[in-house]
Amino acid sequence: MNYKAPLDDIHFILHELAGLDAICALPESAGLGVDLVHAILDENARFVQDVVAPLNRIGDIRPPVWQDGRVTASPGFVDAFRQFAAGGWQGLQHPEQWGGQGLPKLVGAPAIENLNAASLAFSLCPLLTDGVIEALLQVGSEDLQQRFVPGLIDGSYTGTMNLTEPQAGSDLALVATRAVPQQDDTYRLYGQKIFITYGEHDLAENIVHLVLARTPDAPAGIKGISLFVVPKYIEQDGRQVRNDVWCASLEHKLGIHGSPTAVLLYGSGKGEVGEGAVGYRVGELNRGLEYMFIMMNAARYAVGLQGIALAERATQQALAYAHERIQSRAVEGSDGPVAIIHHPDVARLLQTMRALTQAARATAYVAAAMHDQAHRNPDSSQRDASRALYEYLVPVVKGFSTEMAVEVASLGIQVHGGMGYMEETGAAQHLRDARILPIYEGTTAIQANDLLGRKTLRDGGKVVQKIVADMQATAAELARLCESESDKTLAGSLALMQARFAEAITAYADSARILLTKAGGDIRGVFAGSVPHLMQAGVVFGGWQMVRSALVCLRRRTAGEAGMFEQDKLDVALFYAGHILPRARDYASQIEAGLTIPVALRQS
Amino acid sequence: MNYKAPLDDIHFILHELAGLDAICALPESAGLGVDLVHAILDENARFVQDVVAPLNRIGDIRPPVWQDGRVTASPGFVDAFRQFAAGGWQGLQHPEQWGGQGLPKLVGAPAIENLNAASLAFSLCPLLTDGVIEALLQVGSEDLQQRFVPGLIDGSYTGTMNLTEPQAGSDLALVATRAVPQQDDTYRLYGQKIFITYGEHDLAENIVHLVLARTPDAPAGIKGISLFVVPKYIEQDGRQVRNDVWCASLEHKLGIHGSPTAVLLYGSGKGEVGEGAVGYRVGELNRGLEYMFIMMNAARYAVGLQGIALAERATQQALAYAHERIQSRAVEGSDGPVAIIHHPDVARLLQTMRALTQAARATAYVAAAMHDQAHRNPDSSQRDASRALYEYLVPVVKGFSTEMAVEVASLGIQVHGGMGYMEETGAAQHLRDARILPIYEGTTAIQANDLLGRKTLRDGGKVVQKIVADMQATAAELARLCESESDKTLAGSLALMQARFAEAITAYADSARILLTKAGGDIRGVFAGSVPHLMQAGVVFGGWQMVRSALVCLRRRTAGEAGMFEQDKLDVALFYAGHILPRARDYASQIEAGLTIPVALRQS
Repeated sequence: MNYKAPLDDIHFILHELAGLDAICALPESAGLGVDLVHAILDENARFVQDVVAPLNRIGDIRPPVWQDGRVTASPGFVDAFRQFAAGGWQGLQHPEQWGGQGLPKLVGAPAIENLNAASLAFSLCPLLTDGVIEALLQVGSEDLQQRFVPGLIDGSYTGTMNLTEPQAGSDLALVATRAVPQQDDTYRLYGQKIFITYGEHDLAENIVHLVLARTPDAPAGIKGISLFVVPKYIEQDGRQVRNDVWCASLEHKLGIHGSPTAVLLYGSGKGEVGEGAVGYRVGELNRGLEYMFIMMNAARYAVGLQGIALAERATQQALAYAHERIQSRAVEGSDGPVAIIHHPDVARLLQTMRALTQAARATAYVAAAMHDQAHRNPDSSQRDASRALYEYLVPVVKGFSTEMAVEVASLGIQVHGGMGYMEETGAAQHLRDARILPIYEGTTAIQANDLLGRKTLRDGGKVVQKIVADMQATAAELARLCESESDKTLAGSLALMQARFAEAITAYADSARILLTKAGGDIRGVFAGSVPHLMQAGVVFGGWQMVRSALVCLRRRTAGEAGMFEQDKLDVALFYAGHILPRARDYASQIEAGLTIPVALRQS
Repeated sequence: MNYKAPLDDIHFILHELAGLDAICALPESAGLGVDLVHAILDENARFVQDVVAPLNRIGDIRPPVWQDGRVTASPGFVDAFRQFAAGGWQGLQHPEQWGGQGLPKLVGAPAIENLNAASLAFSLCPLLTDGVIEALLQVGSEDLQQRFVPGLIDGSYTGTMNLTEPQAGSDLALVATRAVPQQDDTYRLYGQKIFITYGEHDLAENIVHLVLARTPDAPAGIKGISLFVVPKYIEQDGRQVRNDVWCASLEHKLGIHGSPTAVLLYGSGKGEVGEGAVGYRVGELNRGLEYMFIMMNAARYAVGLQGIALAERATQQALAYAHERIQSRAVEGSDGPVAIIHHPDVARLLQTMRALTQAARATAYVAAAMHDQAHRNPDSSQRDASRALYEYLVPVVKGFSTEMAVEVASLGIQVHGGMGYMEETGAAQHLRDARILPIYEGTTAIQANDLLGRKTLRDGGKVVQKIVADMQATAAELARLCESESDKTLAGSLALMQARFAEAITAYADSARILLTKAGGDIRGVFAGSVPHLMQAGVVFGGWQMVRSALVCLRRRTAGEAGMFEQDKLDVALFYAGHILPRARDYASQIEAGLTIPVALRQS
């Protein structure tokens, strides 16, 4: 099954919802015209469709192979990575002074989404490398930057994040890897890291590991963790020698088979450097976790894009099958069997998939625009407001888009019926691939704690209030358009949209308020509502974008400028309002229940 | 990870909700005492835990092997099947005159649930065999019964259902396999069947295929389909000769790897019987689909049990992990990291898993009791009322329990975090296995069409009204108990339960009414609501059983007879009311949306 970049929807969102023109007009975006953005995205679409998409199934059925510590990537991955690097795709969002293109996140986001839709397993490598580049540029010394950043951007090197250890997953306070300072200002690292994505492979000449570890006298807990760069090869006396970091094995995972997930051993004494992996400290001692969050935040947003990407690909595949597969007569009567897309429940499943995907995409791109405003707007108050909204949205984009991806991929199997369960069809792979997304880079619960704790309770709900006010303005606009609609069926649909949007806003605002109110008391009850509240925020924020989309389409319709795209977008937006937005109230009920009924397992 | 049959919950439901004593007291159950039921279920638990459960992972990693048309089962399966047969488990619910035990479905249901929880892939073989036995006993000739039923019951033979062809999945009108009558009253069959569970294997000496096919002059569509028995070996001149039915290949599936899914070729001319697979007609010509539904209904109910079984096993595994895994401090403060079961969101996930599983189990067992009442009650009006409710519940049990199983298995992975994504953990297998359940034996949409079309619209909603009236009686009982509760926290929880139950009943009754009202007009809109209405029925019926459970526990509490089990059951019931029942209203909104917003994809 081929993948086709959904450029129509991407451009609609970029222009109509996320304000691409405003981003292009910022002083720092000098020279970035809309035409150039289109050209970049066209070229991106061609590249991912032709070069990367064919790897998706190959990676699944022929995963990387480990032998004696070396890992050979899936067939075709080396060549595709070379083309990826040569095309300059790794540098898209990185500074021009380091060899990148310095494009705004709003342009990077669709490019990264499409890359991931083409092959999630392939795209994980650049995703991690992006994080390493960002961390080094923000907190690395000039020396470290010069040694590693150009190679990371030109594809000579790739990057990894080494957080997890067997006993330390979500709880990084338990990290035990040791970093022993040496007289030459380097460190020697000893320990075991697990779940290291692209921890070992043959795509590039070197691998730059960013590693969390403890120095001997460091305080216990998260305040004693420092960050180190440990390259696979280091330069010694003018030649590249093998450092003491080794891939002990690869994991056998449910999905993303094409992506090697490594167990890495530091300091087992087998390298050419003596015992201990040579590492360089990044930034100050004991601030490692803080630095790692620089990578984590970028990576979390990117994992959200992965969810959207996977949902898009699963949706395209299910749509194609539903058009082809002829089965059963129409419920309203037909001469013979019809394509299953015609059956009401199949249409419902497909519209659910499309609505969730498009809404999550809109949310993610709006968030990207906020990131760009936060970094590029000359007005500091606008920067601050944008930053606050972006930071609020990162856990929403990560949590909601990834949970949504699992749902959509599962529905995609259902549309295929029995064929969906057969691996050759490819629909099942999407579910297997998607299932990691709500887990890695922080589970949905971790995202929800971030959203509720750091992004909602800490500012007393200010960002939420701003969002609610803006949504209400959109609701008022919708109400005005509803009144003047003369098409009776459409008027009925719009009235339902209006009612559901109003209810959803109320549910979201009420839930945030009640969680804020109770936070001083029943803290367990409050945090039992954290994931429902995150999902609620995702549903409502996405619904807001769908209402905004509908308004654009209605206006174009009035102006006689609406074609097939506008008609379809309006259908999807109405569907979202009718079928997805009611979840906001369901989540509100769950939040209320969490605060009423003690959440604890007395027995099990 | 071991499996432990949840006998506490099973016995509670059997006695307190499903009326086991009443079933035992029926004249046809003569001699069946409660002690015997307990002994059977104890023995069943021992057998599935010790013999079958260890096969679950083996089947997954070492699937059956096809070579030259022969299939070798996964290691250990042959021996386990021999023990299964020797233990008399295949005959549990079949008549004593044929070598069975003639036990009521209410006793068979937990035994089958436990077997499936131990290994879904293993249990599919007996599940299909049950259906073949039931079809032969109901519509087969005495000759066919005598030739095949004893062997099917004693495990010498196994059975299959052959419906699907490449072009005919949900739409059996498209079946094209031909059955050509011979002069000796036999038929010769020609065609290809796909997705045939246990279509070929080495567990038994013969395989009895029930096959849908068309005779040469049969009318087109479903009215021209007849049912045939085609054994793998037939007796000719006193010896067993190989019939002309061959396994061309096995499918590579997402899950249930231990269960061979065969492509079967009929009439390729390679047998010892000349060209054409020799078959015997079952019942009358052209009534095949009707007969197949005898099997299908039994099988659909059993697949519902599979959903419950899988959810139970996934829940047990997640619970065990959550007790063991130490990670992060408690949100309310703790000296060090705690077991993750203590974290509010993990507790919420686990209670969701437990609540859904227990509610679906209660619904399924209540349905089984209705089946037994329908078959064994001497009072014909009670038989009729019970039959109507059972038939209403079959698509609910199938549809709801299987969708629920996918949700629960997916949550099980989430509880495990990154470890859940590693195949060695076993949590991922549950999701892979579960994902077929909402598809085979009729997708959820097929179940929903059955529920809405044949079970709701056809009788003008009479069964629904009866259910609603009974639920309201339970609600009134709950209201009385709420008033007298003196424990303040519990009173608050019960008040929430009361409110949510009332809302859910209203949502369900309103949705049924609106669907009935609109059925004469917007038929596409009505059927867009079929799956939401099925899920709503499942949520509310299960919620009713949870409220009934709570009432039992509260009464025992008042009587000073409540222990740990009652306390826990009450917790789970309250959780269900607070967190799951609100979905009923969400489904109502979706049904309303389907009737308001045209459900069709104009563009894709």
